[in-house]
Amino acid sequence: AADAASAALGMRLVEIGPGEARVSMVVRPDMVNGHDLCHGGLIASLADSAFALACNSRGPVTVAAGFEVDFLEPARRGQVLDAHAREVALRGRSGLYDVTVRVEGTVVAEFRGRSRSLAPRT
Amino acid sequence: AADAASAALGMRLVEIGPGEARVSMVVRPDMVNGHDLCHGGLIASLADSAFALACNSRGPVTVAAGFEVDFLEPARRGQVLDAHAREVALRGRSGLYDVTVRVEGTVVAEFRGRSRSLAPRT
Amino acid sequence: AADAASAALGMRLVEIGPGEARVSMVVRPDMVNGHDLCHGGLIASLADSAFALACNSRGPVTVAAGFEVDFLEPARRGQVLDAHAREVALRGRSGLYDVTVRVEGTVVAEFRGRSRSLAPRT
Amino acid sequence: AADAASAALGMRLVEIGPGEARVSMVVRPDMVNGHDLCHGGLIASLADSAFALACNSRGPVTVAAGFEVDFLEPARRGQVLDAHAREVALRGRSGLYDVTVRVEGTVVAEFRGRSRSLAPRT
Repeated sequence: AADAASAALGMRLVEIGPGEARVSMVVRPDMVNGHDLCHGGLIASLADSAFALACNSRGPVTVAAGFEVDFLEPARRGQVLDAHAREVALRGRSGLYDVTVRVEGTVVAEFRGRSRSLAPRT
Repeated sequence: AADAASAALGMRLVEIGPGEARVSMVVRPDMVNGHDLCHGGLIASLADSAFALACNSRGPVTVAAGFEVDFLEPARRGQVLDAHAREVALRGRSGLYDVTVRVEGTVVAEFRGRSRSLAPRT
Repeated sequence: AADAASAALGMRLVEIGPGEARVSMVVRPDMVNGHDLCHGGLIASLADSAFALACNSRGPVTVAAGFEVDFLEPARRGQVLDAHAREVALRGRSGLYDVTVRVEGTVVAEFRGRSRSLAPRT
Repeated sequence: AADAASAALGMRLVEIGPGEARVSMVVRPDMVNGHDLCHGGLIASLADSAFALACNSRGPVTVAAGFEVDFLEPARRGQVLDAHAREVALRGRSGLYDVTVRVEGTVVAEFRGRSRSLAPRT
């Protein structure tokens, strides 16, 4: 597949559109931390994948410059995480995207990503 | 192991001390994205694990409230990532930790995590 | 006034409701930087005041633990900045608020604040 | 002066060098909020000014793309804030700077700024 990491984490693309993407992931037994909750970095990885899909939906190759994530609720083994990314702003080659991660409708994390488009190859 | 997610990602604890931890991870073929570079979320996961170890080194159970990461250089398949977490501030039950992720001495990401200690069980 | 700093910066409360506030400020000649644009810290100060009003609208005394701001467009001398804060999440004593700062409908900055309620005095 | 906002806030440049700057500011009566503590946005403004000086010390005109700040301790009326900015990373036209704000040696805030150099005019 195009993205081996997302595939290995069992991520599933639910929906994609201009400046928007939705990706889901089941919290597997090999994704929990010492408190038996989903590793925060993997929740961020899911959001980061949704963010990458949303910001590349516009055409030019775009990479993540960085992101910020706030964890609001834990996610447990077996639960399904749903990440919804949408464009907040796009100015020149810089973009700002918000991703909300939910479990059964409850927000577990809010993520804000900053993207940067590479120079178009011609 | 106590942390299945860190184990599944092949993370190795290099060093731990009061308010400090160092963890390494090899960029495996199942960790790269569509550009054949390490998935940013997994670089953040490594930093997050180092952060968790550093902030739990003090005793009370502590969780991540959130973090911010800036990606400075890409990391390629087969490279070894080294994450060094250290305490910046600890006030009451809130902590601030910086984690620097390097590949062969070059900084690839700077991560800043905010922790929160849970009430001590007695 | 209760908040001397907001008053000294000429901030005007436009609207307030549960978990929400709107505050405006004119970019005065003493608020611009060397590029003749509004000092970024003062744009952040406006957003921070809107955030403080929104998170204190719930009752308990609440303080800012920190915030993150992205500057999207410059604001010029004489322009009117409008900051709209609204609650994103409230869990126990921790809150997350988004503030959008606009000039004549154009977004100039996106701000995300984290709040913490103090123990209620009885 | 080159920067009217910094001057109006009474900021004083203490030291400047390549990728580094130190700026101080007294917490005046018109800088406190409703809790009689320095407005968080003004602490951030001081850090932002130190950041701007540090990232422009390299030559090309550089602007702030955004920043993140964590408030660790309150600062009171009459106290002197000292902000020390230093370069963390510089890659192409993007820079990362950390600013520590202290009152009499105690850290009151940690700030991380992201800069962007404009195209050099020739």
